[in-house]
Amino acid sequence: MIDLRSDTLTKPTDEMRAAMARAEVGDDVYGEDPTVIRLEERVAGLFGHEAALFTPTGSMANVLAVRSLVAAGQEVLCEASAHIARAELGAHGAYTGLTMRTWIHPRGQVDLPTIRSIFAPDMGPFFVATTAISVENTHNFAGGAVLPLQDLRDLREYATGVGVGVHMDGARIWNAHVATGTPLVEYGAVADVLAVCLSKGLGAPVGSLMVGSRDAIAEARVWRKRMGGGMRQAGILAAAGLHALDHHVERLADDHAHARVLAEACGVDPATVDTNIVVAQRSDAAAFVAAAAEQGVLVSAVGPTAVRLVTHLDVSRDDAEKAAAVLARL
Amino acid sequence: MIDLRSDTLTKPTDEMRAAMARAEVGDDVYGEDPTVIRLEERVAGLFGHEAALFTPTGSMANVLAVRSLVAAGQEVLCEASAHIARAELGAHGAYTGLTMRTWIHPRGQVDLPTIRSIFAPDMGPFFVATTAISVENTHNFAGGAVLPLQDLRDLREYATGVGVGVHMDGARIWNAHVATGTPLVEYGAVADVLAVCLSKGLGAPVGSLMVGSRDAIAEARVWRKRMGGGMRQAGILAAAGLHALDHHVERLADDHAHARVLAEACGVDPATVDTNIVVAQRSDAAAFVAAAAEQGVLVSAVGPTAVRLVTHLDVSRDDAEKAAAVLARL
Amino acid sequence: MIDLRSDTLTKPTDEMRAAMARAEVGDDVYGEDPTVIRLEERVAGLFGHEAALFTPTGSMANVLAVRSLVAAGQEVLCEASAHIARAELGAHGAYTGLTMRTWIHPRGQVDLPTIRSIFAPDMGPFFVATTAISVENTHNFAGGAVLPLQDLRDLREYATGVGVGVHMDGARIWNAHVATGTPLVEYGAVADVLAVCLSKGLGAPVGSLMVGSRDAIAEARVWRKRMGGGMRQAGILAAAGLHALDHHVERLADDHAHARVLAEACGVDPATVDTNIVVAQRSDAAAFVAAAAEQGVLVSAVGPTAVRLVTHLDVSRDDAEKAAAVLARL
Amino acid sequence: MIDLRSDTLTKPTDEMRAAMARAEVGDDVYGEDPTVIRLEERVAGLFGHEAALFTPTGSMANVLAVRSLVAAGQEVLCEASAHIARAELGAHGAYTGLTMRTWIHPRGQVDLPTIRSIFAPDMGPFFVATTAISVENTHNFAGGAVLPLQDLRDLREYATGVGVGVHMDGARIWNAHVATGTPLVEYGAVADVLAVCLSKGLGAPVGSLMVGSRDAIAEARVWRKRMGGGMRQAGILAAAGLHALDHHVERLADDHAHARVLAEACGVDPATVDTNIVVAQRSDAAAFVAAAAEQGVLVSAVGPTAVRLVTHLDVSRDDAEKAAAVLARL
Repeated sequence: MIDLRSDTLTKPTDEMRAAMARAEVGDDVYGEDPTVIRLEERVAGLFGHEAALFTPTGSMANVLAVRSLVAAGQEVLCEASAHIARAELGAHGAYTGLTMRTWIHPRGQVDLPTIRSIFAPDMGPFFVATTAISVENTHNFAGGAVLPLQDLRDLREYATGVGVGVHMDGARIWNAHVATGTPLVEYGAVADVLAVCLSKGLGAPVGSLMVGSRDAIAEARVWRKRMGGGMRQAGILAAAGLHALDHHVERLADDHAHARVLAEACGVDPATVDTNIVVAQRSDAAAFVAAAAEQGVLVSAVGPTAVRLVTHLDVSRDDAEKAAAVLARL
Repeated sequence: MIDLRSDTLTKPTDEMRAAMARAEVGDDVYGEDPTVIRLEERVAGLFGHEAALFTPTGSMANVLAVRSLVAAGQEVLCEASAHIARAELGAHGAYTGLTMRTWIHPRGQVDLPTIRSIFAPDMGPFFVATTAISVENTHNFAGGAVLPLQDLRDLREYATGVGVGVHMDGARIWNAHVATGTPLVEYGAVADVLAVCLSKGLGAPVGSLMVGSRDAIAEARVWRKRMGGGMRQAGILAAAGLHALDHHVERLADDHAHARVLAEACGVDPATVDTNIVVAQRSDAAAFVAAAAEQGVLVSAVGPTAVRLVTHLDVSRDDAEKAAAVLARL
Repeated sequence: MIDLRSDTLTKPTDEMRAAMARAEVGDDVYGEDPTVIRLEERVAGLFGHEAALFTPTGSMANVLAVRSLVAAGQEVLCEASAHIARAELGAHGAYTGLTMRTWIHPRGQVDLPTIRSIFAPDMGPFFVATTAISVENTHNFAGGAVLPLQDLRDLREYATGVGVGVHMDGARIWNAHVATGTPLVEYGAVADVLAVCLSKGLGAPVGSLMVGSRDAIAEARVWRKRMGGGMRQAGILAAAGLHALDHHVERLADDHAHARVLAEACGVDPATVDTNIVVAQRSDAAAFVAAAAEQGVLVSAVGPTAVRLVTHLDVSRDDAEKAAAVLARL
Repeated sequence: MIDLRSDTLTKPTDEMRAAMARAEVGDDVYGEDPTVIRLEERVAGLFGHEAALFTPTGSMANVLAVRSLVAAGQEVLCEASAHIARAELGAHGAYTGLTMRTWIHPRGQVDLPTIRSIFAPDMGPFFVATTAISVENTHNFAGGAVLPLQDLRDLREYATGVGVGVHMDGARIWNAHVATGTPLVEYGAVADVLAVCLSKGLGAPVGSLMVGSRDAIAEARVWRKRMGGGMRQAGILAAAGLHALDHHVERLADDHAHARVLAEACGVDPATVDTNIVVAQRSDAAAFVAAAAEQGVLVSAVGPTAVRLVTHLDVSRDDAEKAAAVLARL
């Protein structure tokens, strides 16, 4: 089986397992796990922020990050197919109590004129006020699309001008970095708070981080415990993340190349495939998924007519080519 | 002072006050207020639904109505400037815990192709599922725009086809009815649940109703109490509503005519003014509001460059013409 | 039928209806209803507080008042049969997200040693901290029991010493005032925030008030709107409240006398009946309720073996005696 | 340093690290991690339940478990110093929206007469209904007290009779099992749902499980994802849990013996120390904590005058004796 359903499927390598096995640990609820602290400091530094917080999942990192900018009864704007809107089971409404309005872009991009048109300034206690704008980079349901740095800088400037925050869902920010060469610190500079993930393309088994100011992280630490995310000797997991940062970032370029191979096979223009995700339109996504599975290739349906293929650490060049051959025949 | 800030400003007439003073009452928490029951049955009947529930405000009616279709962690789609999104202080997220995504239309209209494109079917427990689509008729922030019946019927057909509910925020449904001649029952037929208001154009001091199926209303009755909306001898207020239904519906045509007078004075094409609300663009809304107030005309800013004028029961033809003269000079 | 189910059942008198009919009104969401403002200022003054806020129900007044002292993730202590714990459908947990712990007292009294023993100081971000203690005076489910002023003063001193707030559910504070002669301002002095009701013993059809500091009320005004409690020309209702304060306070002494008549008939020691509520134990409360109803006396079950009788404005001396005769026979 | 602050401080042994390093894994969000499945099935079996769900923390397991029995607006009863009431930062109110009432017992025991007296049956849509009773076994803040099996059986019988559920916070159920010899399946038999923890006395770095019926677990799986607890290759952590079940259960008897040594040194009657926790009263808990730390013994304050000492896997007999000598001198 060649498994292209998601880059969350990656299994830890032997080297990563060894790193976990020898991790120095402590009780992270007490702030005493040295490996977690090392990871948090390193990731904060990569993005030029003051602090970071390790979480069991990317969903929790996003919930904590967005709530640092948006309280119950306030509003976040995001693109209509953003992960925070579509794929976190409504946690932001259910747990933070916030309100969301969306702009719509087929490639998940920043659309500043539309954002301006729906932005709601604070007009007193009758109206909901926008307090944050959220972007996803790369954008999962838009096929791993990269958000151009200039668009992010323009958004940052606009948000600062109107006095609201910027959240970046950077679950796959590593892919954007590798695909474009943009330093991570440049991405960090356009956001007040980010969520970044270790267990997608980077191949760690578990773990994400919220990145932001010291104050935002201190407050998020309390809410992480309230949400049930205060793990104890989490250094075991953080060690995998540190290993991934050392060894699994640059190789994402391979995943991107493999994705273009798959795109071609599926009739998707490879020039539209920025990173490691291919979204192809099929008349019946579920039927296509089933047919591919029968031929040994697992893909997933992300809509009634949308099929998604994701390359990752456990998909070799050879796997990609074999899968391409299968998919091309379907 | 001629007060055009909102049609919520109307004061009860002498006849309405008399009707309230003689209302037969009981304890409505126990379901024993005959005037409330009469109003609920009458309004349910007007829209062809089984039951209705009296609430202290339109916001509460909307929260109860939407939550009858959308649970915490589920999603409602609406237009980006809908009252439920913009003007209820985020109650739907804060209290129901739901998620909202929006399409954008300058006139607040049903945009079925866009709705189709963002609609999220139930795809298992990883994604948020759309369980209702909400429309506002007339649409307040779109300048009292009417939603054409055919669009609503198309939406109803689509929603039924994909298995989700339709909520209509009918705070000003009476204006749509009078402006177009569409029977209320036709509007009722396109929605699973509605919220309608008595204290805007109809001139009652307090009160709205949620309209829907017997089951939905029975459940909403419990949630109304939980929200603090279980009033006791509410028949006093319901009597005003019954009086308004008898005497203040057809006269909304006057408000509509007055609005067109004001539109002309403000350089807004009267043909775009469907009902009793005029939204005019001004370079500095706050400054315009202040200048008009100095000349004895109260209007409101609903955005940095958007000024809103609303006609109602307490604005006579003469008032409208005087206000038009003032506004034309500014 | 003699209706002893609740003092919420009272119907407005002719004089009260007349007062409502001539009330001067405005849009209270805009803070422009002169009668509401008059009522709010008067009630704030009665309790020696800075401000008050009119609400559609006592439940909403309690939710707003408690949340002014207790945020999501913080804790309020109260007696186990308090109205906020038992009779508001869990609104404080469902809408404010707070945590509640309870002490148990058969007469609903302040039990300071027990309160001390369960009080939770702020011990850092691992434990829930108590931020308010709530008392109910008179205590509904404890049979209208009055809380002695000295106990309240001791509680106030303790709460101030440990740095937490005091909330008083004063839905029937008027009964405590009349029964004991304690000035309302003395009750006001022991609480940071109170909720008081106009539609129980005082006989107004609808309405309660939260009473507190200017800041707490300003914030509660926003949350009132979010909860759907922002009524428009609420002066109609406020006028009933003002009338009740003028005419229906002192007469509560009659209700208390009537309650003692009923107590005697039910085998309850009249000396234990502080105000207008009698709770009698019966082996089968539901059967007793049904039997009384057959004889023309309506009472209610508030537990499997607890029957409650409440006297009020619409129960005359004669009614009380007739009901007593019926109940004595059962 | 001898660290007696908590049994959450344990670090994985070399054998446990080796087990983690070789764990077979998959994506547990997709239900494909074989080690997680093995652990879930094994733990479900230990308690005689149908299914179990792995969670990152005991707090999350408790929130999911309680919410399977208690919805927003419903009520759980528990002892006033229960972990769910005191030590989960109010998550049950903040996230589930439930209401809590408490009985008070200095040893955290089931007090059935009091539970009966405050239990609230479903009396229609005016009152909050109790839908679950929660017990903690062993009881952390009551000094690791064991709840006698007969008390639990009586509670089970009572709860079944009145139609409500029983939740057991079994974070340290292993200690109760070892201290009393009661089979785990007997504890399982008295509860509808349990939360059990691997990262306290058992010494795993991370992880707890909710245990219950197949339906409850299926629903909890969705809510786990919504809360941000849907980890990917969690088999790494589950492997530690399986290792702990094989090797670290019976040895808890050593922790219990060590705790009695410490109790004696602190002037606490060892006969009152059921398991691995000693709570000693000191006039100034914070000062005592500081003084002990200076002498190389870490303990924690769990109240202004309450000091807690916890023995665990990383405290040897020798450590316990050295710490006892230090504490006896203070």
